[in-house]
Amino acid sequence: MISLGDYTSEQIAALIESANDFKHKAKTEGQAFHPEQPLKGKTIGLLFSKRSTRTRLASETSVAYLGGHAMFLGKDDIQLGVNESLRDSAQVISSMVDGIFARVGEHQEILDIAQYSSVPVVNALCKGNHPTQILADLMTIWEVFSKRRPEAQTIFEVFRGLNLTWVGDSNNVIYEILLAMPKCGINVSVCTPANYPIPEQVRAHAEKDAQETGTKVSYFNNPLHAVNDADIIVTDTWISMGFESEKAQRMKDFQGYQVTSEMAKAGNAKKDWVFMHCLPRKPEEVSDEVFYSDRSVVFQEAENRKWTTIAIFNALFTNKTN
Amino acid sequence: MISLGDYTSEQIAALIESANDFKHKAKTEGQAFHPEQPLKGKTIGLLFSKRSTRTRLASETSVAYLGGHAMFLGKDDIQLGVNESLRDSAQVISSMVDGIFARVGEHQEILDIAQYSSVPVVNALCKGNHPTQILADLMTIWEVFSKRRPEAQTIFEVFRGLNLTWVGDSNNVIYEILLAMPKCGINVSVCTPANYPIPEQVRAHAEKDAQETGTKVSYFNNPLHAVNDADIIVTDTWISMGFESEKAQRMKDFQGYQVTSEMAKAGNAKKDWVFMHCLPRKPEEVSDEVFYSDRSVVFQEAENRKWTTIAIFNALFTNKTN
Amino acid sequence: MISLGDYTSEQIAALIESANDFKHKAKTEGQAFHPEQPLKGKTIGLLFSKRSTRTRLASETSVAYLGGHAMFLGKDDIQLGVNESLRDSAQVISSMVDGIFARVGEHQEILDIAQYSSVPVVNALCKGNHPTQILADLMTIWEVFSKRRPEAQTIFEVFRGLNLTWVGDSNNVIYEILLAMPKCGINVSVCTPANYPIPEQVRAHAEKDAQETGTKVSYFNNPLHAVNDADIIVTDTWISMGFESEKAQRMKDFQGYQVTSEMAKAGNAKKDWVFMHCLPRKPEEVSDEVFYSDRSVVFQEAENRKWTTIAIFNALFTNKTN
Repeated sequence: MISLGDYTSEQIAALIESANDFKHKAKTEGQAFHPEQPLKGKTIGLLFSKRSTRTRLASETSVAYLGGHAMFLGKDDIQLGVNESLRDSAQVISSMVDGIFARVGEHQEILDIAQYSSVPVVNALCKGNHPTQILADLMTIWEVFSKRRPEAQTIFEVFRGLNLTWVGDSNNVIYEILLAMPKCGINVSVCTPANYPIPEQVRAHAEKDAQETGTKVSYFNNPLHAVNDADIIVTDTWISMGFESEKAQRMKDFQGYQVTSEMAKAGNAKKDWVFMHCLPRKPEEVSDEVFYSDRSVVFQEAENRKWTTIAIFNALFTNKTN
Repeated sequence: MISLGDYTSEQIAALIESANDFKHKAKTEGQAFHPEQPLKGKTIGLLFSKRSTRTRLASETSVAYLGGHAMFLGKDDIQLGVNESLRDSAQVISSMVDGIFARVGEHQEILDIAQYSSVPVVNALCKGNHPTQILADLMTIWEVFSKRRPEAQTIFEVFRGLNLTWVGDSNNVIYEILLAMPKCGINVSVCTPANYPIPEQVRAHAEKDAQETGTKVSYFNNPLHAVNDADIIVTDTWISMGFESEKAQRMKDFQGYQVTSEMAKAGNAKKDWVFMHCLPRKPEEVSDEVFYSDRSVVFQEAENRKWTTIAIFNALFTNKTN
Repeated sequence: MISLGDYTSEQIAALIESANDFKHKAKTEGQAFHPEQPLKGKTIGLLFSKRSTRTRLASETSVAYLGGHAMFLGKDDIQLGVNESLRDSAQVISSMVDGIFARVGEHQEILDIAQYSSVPVVNALCKGNHPTQILADLMTIWEVFSKRRPEAQTIFEVFRGLNLTWVGDSNNVIYEILLAMPKCGINVSVCTPANYPIPEQVRAHAEKDAQETGTKVSYFNNPLHAVNDADIIVTDTWISMGFESEKAQRMKDFQGYQVTSEMAKAGNAKKDWVFMHCLPRKPEEVSDEVFYSDRSVVFQEAENRKWTTIAIFNALFTNKTN
């Protein structure tokens, strides 16, 4: 799994249903572990070239839930592509583990690992994609709006016609949203500063999905225009890892981008709009008053990282007879 | 569990009995794991903002013994309070794990984690407390002196009237001793240099416990006075992590504080006094001749870190149906 | 297990057979874990004072296969001999774990750990030895040549008379080859530059084994002479960890040492010679055309690190009733 862009909406829905099933059994029936322990005796390699707390938490706890061993290899443990070729590393590592969950930098790195690995590879996060985050976001959206749309029979009936607005940076989170959500029936409004454009390739992919499903994808530079009629407002830190030196410039570029009640009201968001954020959060991109409010589902969204990762690992890592 | 100061002596005794039960079954009956594997499929987060070898060893091996997965997050994996608020981190982490064992710096940090966590939190070590160490010390004292007092029917009858003398720094180890031991019936003599006083709050807590149980707590600056009639002499490194720059000054301040046979004899310690140290040990605070002697129970004390941690985790982490 | 030099050829053969049995059951019968889970509830301490990806991968996955918990302690987690004596660390650690797998620097360190540990210690890698690597190499040689010698009844009949040539540095890999292979019936030709001699002690050990088993050990400085009649050509990086500053000098010293088809042909290696390398690999010591060719068994060799480590841990770590 490199990106949800490669998955059909039915495959995505199946993963959400599986995640919901695990969550339900754990939280209401007290099922503390997968009864079949499908990863018993198996090791999943977690290759993290950069720190990523939530992603690591979700993946380690998921492997444990499935009965396996999570072997964490951080940047001090292994330097992919430095001391030996990525090809050699991928061949060697995959010969000893049962699955690889890799958080790399460049998109090409995850493609190289996938090409040379003999076991399934899941993209934990790269510059271009973030599939496990967006699957958790979709699950959270479904949880929240299925309560408001009790008549909906399917996941897609819950999603259909929802308006999601992104107010923030041009990064892997919004790319993955664009690759995954239009095909699920969610309208996406993207607001980034003019000099932070969305790559043409991502726009084309989203446009194609939107045309097929009859959803709408729109681009804005003014947050007040973008949040019009929004059911969901999403943002992320303005200064992702690696961009710390640009902080002063970015604080200027993103002026007016802080998500606040006033902004949502002034821009005519829906009255009961919901706030999402993949965390960690800094106060500049969202006010405390929104972040810690009832409309904020950020902690539910974070917890769902675990249940969706269990679903992904259960689907992809449990079939290999090592 | 923030401190044994919050526990009753009966609760402490129950934990020691539980630890002893695990140790006995493992060492004499070959029970290599908890038969019910109460942490199966579960993850315990070990959040260590500073290195602590023994504490980590004890906790990881304990989680394994109980059938769970220990997720170690060191200072390079997670920087509590740096990249996001401690509140956010505590909420997110606790939504994915089944228990938190945190080794922090300031006492307030462990209080904050406990406040916002949705799962039980055990204090692995902070500037103010060190409950898992002192529980292991109490277990060790009980093991040693129950052999010398075969007539004792209860743990408290073994403890009653024992004289423990601390000769060393004013740090979390002696604070926790003062919060836990007087209430268990052990008399405590504290010897620190005059400019290394014990905080008033700790003294008050100890005094109150001492009055209730009829034990004695005394303070000294001269080791030869402090060790008088001691059954147990305890010390610790003079230069804890973070105080390396004060080394020269501290070596001067602690002159005459090295625990030696001569010191104990000159100060009229009991003839069969026992030496304890939470390790790691430097030669300046205790001579080789004492440290590696028969009266030194330091390695038994270290091993008991494991059995007491199993008892604590078994009591606190195994009830949550995630 | 400090070195295969301390093991008899029968003990080595038994470990290879055990490793083959695990590999066979896993790969052809889908046995994803040891059915008895002999390390259930147990912790194996992996003490790595230096990074070693393959060794870590093999050991963590092996512990998981056997049902145990691998506790990885890297150089940032524990500094053996720095903050406390190696003796104290070994005593404390071994009192809480069920086995120690240590990757140290100096040979004396692994001897010290073994002396003071109360649980079995396996040498993961030190300056003098590398037993787990060479056991994997022997397994690989047996796998490759048992197909070419279908009439062989025993492991030793497969090994007998094979010619292995080392072309490279004077390091722990060739030392361990010399300590292990002559006694198994394999002739060893060692080619190192004149100023990179093999220690006298290792040569004497190899010579003694060679005389007892009727094998031949020879030393060369010219690769073209050394590869004459070789069934197997082995090399390793010229610049091991810690020698980075000598890179320019070493590149000069090892001129003509790159393993290529031309070199093997010019030196009259056997037509179907096999290439081995313990990885990670740099292009200077072996050409791509050899490294990625059919005669290269480097990835099979790497994977066998896992199966042989399972065999070693199963033999040494599963008997202690903690």
